[in-house]
Amino acid sequence: MITTQIPHQEINPAMAPLTTTHAGTPSPQYSITVRLECPHKPGWIARVAGVIAKLGGAIQAIDLVSIHKSRSLRDYTIECTSADQEQAMIEALRQIEGVQVCSVSDNTFLLHMGGKLEVFSQAPLRTRSDLSMAYTPGVARVCTRIHQDPRTSFNLTIRKNCIAVVSDGSAVLGLGNIGAEAAMPVMEGKAILFKEFGGVDAFPLCIASQDTEEIIRFCKLIAPSFGGINLEDISAPRCFEIEDRLAQELDIPVFHDDQHGTAVVVLAALINTLKITGKKAAKMKAVVAGAGAAGYQCTRTLAHFGLADIVVCDSRGAIHPGREFPGNPAKQWLAHNTNPQGLKGSLQEVLAGADLFLGLSAPGLLARDDVLAMNPDPIIFAMSNPTPEIMPEEVEGVAAVTATGRSDYVNQINNVLAFPGIFRGALDARASEINDEMKQAAAFAIAEVIAEDELSPDYIIPSAFNRMVYQRVAMAVRRAAHQSGVARRMPKGIGIHA
Amino acid sequence: MITTQIPHQEINPAMAPLTTTHAGTPSPQYSITVRLECPHKPGWIARVAGVIAKLGGAIQAIDLVSIHKSRSLRDYTIECTSADQEQAMIEALRQIEGVQVCSVSDNTFLLHMGGKLEVFSQAPLRTRSDLSMAYTPGVARVCTRIHQDPRTSFNLTIRKNCIAVVSDGSAVLGLGNIGAEAAMPVMEGKAILFKEFGGVDAFPLCIASQDTEEIIRFCKLIAPSFGGINLEDISAPRCFEIEDRLAQELDIPVFHDDQHGTAVVVLAALINTLKITGKKAAKMKAVVAGAGAAGYQCTRTLAHFGLADIVVCDSRGAIHPGREFPGNPAKQWLAHNTNPQGLKGSLQEVLAGADLFLGLSAPGLLARDDVLAMNPDPIIFAMSNPTPEIMPEEVEGVAAVTATGRSDYVNQINNVLAFPGIFRGALDARASEINDEMKQAAAFAIAEVIAEDELSPDYIIPSAFNRMVYQRVAMAVRRAAHQSGVARRMPKGIGIHA
Repeated sequence: MITTQIPHQEINPAMAPLTTTHAGTPSPQYSITVRLECPHKPGWIARVAGVIAKLGGAIQAIDLVSIHKSRSLRDYTIECTSADQEQAMIEALRQIEGVQVCSVSDNTFLLHMGGKLEVFSQAPLRTRSDLSMAYTPGVARVCTRIHQDPRTSFNLTIRKNCIAVVSDGSAVLGLGNIGAEAAMPVMEGKAILFKEFGGVDAFPLCIASQDTEEIIRFCKLIAPSFGGINLEDISAPRCFEIEDRLAQELDIPVFHDDQHGTAVVVLAALINTLKITGKKAAKMKAVVAGAGAAGYQCTRTLAHFGLADIVVCDSRGAIHPGREFPGNPAKQWLAHNTNPQGLKGSLQEVLAGADLFLGLSAPGLLARDDVLAMNPDPIIFAMSNPTPEIMPEEVEGVAAVTATGRSDYVNQINNVLAFPGIFRGALDARASEINDEMKQAAAFAIAEVIAEDELSPDYIIPSAFNRMVYQRVAMAVRRAAHQSGVARRMPKGIGIHA
Repeated sequence: MITTQIPHQEINPAMAPLTTTHAGTPSPQYSITVRLECPHKPGWIARVAGVIAKLGGAIQAIDLVSIHKSRSLRDYTIECTSADQEQAMIEALRQIEGVQVCSVSDNTFLLHMGGKLEVFSQAPLRTRSDLSMAYTPGVARVCTRIHQDPRTSFNLTIRKNCIAVVSDGSAVLGLGNIGAEAAMPVMEGKAILFKEFGGVDAFPLCIASQDTEEIIRFCKLIAPSFGGINLEDISAPRCFEIEDRLAQELDIPVFHDDQHGTAVVVLAALINTLKITGKKAAKMKAVVAGAGAAGYQCTRTLAHFGLADIVVCDSRGAIHPGREFPGNPAKQWLAHNTNPQGLKGSLQEVLAGADLFLGLSAPGLLARDDVLAMNPDPIIFAMSNPTPEIMPEEVEGVAAVTATGRSDYVNQINNVLAFPGIFRGALDARASEINDEMKQAAAFAIAEVIAEDELSPDYIIPSAFNRMVYQRVAMAVRRAAHQSGVARRMPKGIGIHA
């Protein structure tokens, strides 16, 4: 019965061929800036550009640095297709007679130098008066107030707008278990997304432990300093217990984005896809590849939304009631609450006759033939990142709707559509948790950003750069928090009576 | 033998009469802005100002908001002397016939609303290219690089310039054990001082545990995310073990500011005081009141500097070899390494014949008569904050040099002179620790900001607003890190070969 091995996202180091982009397309992630000294004569720029083009690089900019006598110095910014191609490009430029390569910088690495976050003061510190209000002795009055009524800390400290982004580095992107230090650039990136799109101050904390109890305890220790906690890139099944326990034991929102953020955006995409395809949730057959954090939660969310027939596959094929999952209650739950037909077999086998493929697993699992075996007008959400389970071009003309997690194809199902607005709304409502009502409200808000007459197979989900998304999501989440009774208000404002 | 009870800084809630300033002086920490509607006729401002002055308030500003027909609306910003006086002021203004109090805000609380820190992005996120470099997929290249060589995390993440300010809220200012939530405003204040004066990004983490082992473990968990850790307001004796253990077990600088920051600035002040008074370190008798974090470390630092005769007093009087301190190795150390005469008795008793009084304990412990019993030209560093062990005006004409921790007297011995520059230097050197050489270099650098011909009894320590201090300290600390072998350099830059 065991046929295709679907590698777990968190354990297979080979799954992410990160040094290539698809179809040899130059990409900003492989952007280099090369400073070249050339003869200052007509024709030299064309000669250099010709070499770059021949190797498949795309010139983004040519900036003149200086001209000295018969020589000119110019910065060529070139997008390459891979790290290997960057090297080949530099070598080829070195080989041009009369040209000297003065320096090379890799713009992605440059961008990350020194980290991507800065901690700024909101309080002026120019005079002694400033100091005596922001720090001693004046600050003692504020401390005393919070000591008397700890709820005021949500108003009088950064808790009002600041969340922690916590990871143990165990399941980072498609890179797997790379540890805390190496996870930091992702968590910093997450923090800047929170700021840019949600106005939420977020601080990354990558921790040197992968022990479930210790991670839970850690989050409880930091809770007094934050208004919420976003868990990130913690591998399954530990992530389930960590989030469940924290949701019970803390009175600030705890949100595992890999689970819930993904479920929200997938649901948003599906809501709009159903409008186009006319398929009905209750009558669809869905196959989910991947039973990790995202696979589990998306399945629960889709089931709650009304999909009755979902089959989830892990690396050993379909999950069914006959399989045992000691130590993994999430898969145990899936075994007993999905797959109503009790299908067994490989992903390929159970995919036959399905309407929706939701891939949250590994690159290249599917072939065009697999998709041809699905029901007519199949829906393909191939979200493995950066390389999808099947490339959209392979199912052109077959799939009714194709979506991926990538920005260089249409229909990018991107968590960034959800998490900034969700936390914005939760913080604004001072919610004690982020509950199902709030998440569902977020999904509908995202879907509804696209008017029905704008919807098309190429446009089922708004762009990450559509600023309307975040406002709509925040408003919907805030309202849902109030309606579901988890919003908390201060008993009174902080004024002279504080 | 036990006479005067010196209360421990961390356990006596009565020690800090925080709602008063000395001598009824209006202070920015009690600044209120009152919006008043008055008849728009000559003489009304003078009438209001008269009431304010009569109550002892100081008008800082009168801002016109609007004039409507015969009425005007103005904001009066008034510095008061206490929270009680603020209330009395508002009441008195309400009593003026024809005047209406429209609103009142307390400017200290206003300043702290929403916290004092913001987390900013250093990476632009305007376009898809930005996103693909700062976040997926480009960020994966940076993660992979750090995974291959974790040392690069000091260059490619916020570790390059970011430290944690960690407190358990057990010994906050003079407020005592107020807990994590209530400690946040102080730690946020500390963070803005780090930024303003050292250019160091600092993030406050107040944690919900006061268990020594758990605090140690916590700091080890967060170490991958930070370039250093500043411990703050953790009560003695736990703070000693926490810092010692972390210094041994982590490869990033760990610095307990209450101990070492205080010791550095006290030493700086003493270095300059000795230049003025002509007293010799080796021949002085010093009495230190307070055997907490600061008292212990200042004593060690002064002893290392050459003071041979130091007597330390705790709440039971002089610490001498005959006393036992189970569970407190710091006091045990003091008992066996200070007080060479084996003096017993109260602070007052052992103070007779001393040259230096260093107060790190509690308000109002000393009287003028106590100081009169010291050697001629006594030096008084009365650093209890906000209320010193003795007010400077009480020893006028007696003490050769008086210093406090307060900004509203001359000679403010303020930790802020030390910690921003110390961490700036340590981060720039990528030091693995902050050792004695670096701390001593910082003390001399602070002292030497004041030229010898500028020195006077009123000017032994530079102002917190003298920007030269931070640069000099940073440079001295960086140099000392290199000379003492704790500076670490990257083997090579991060470039195309990353």
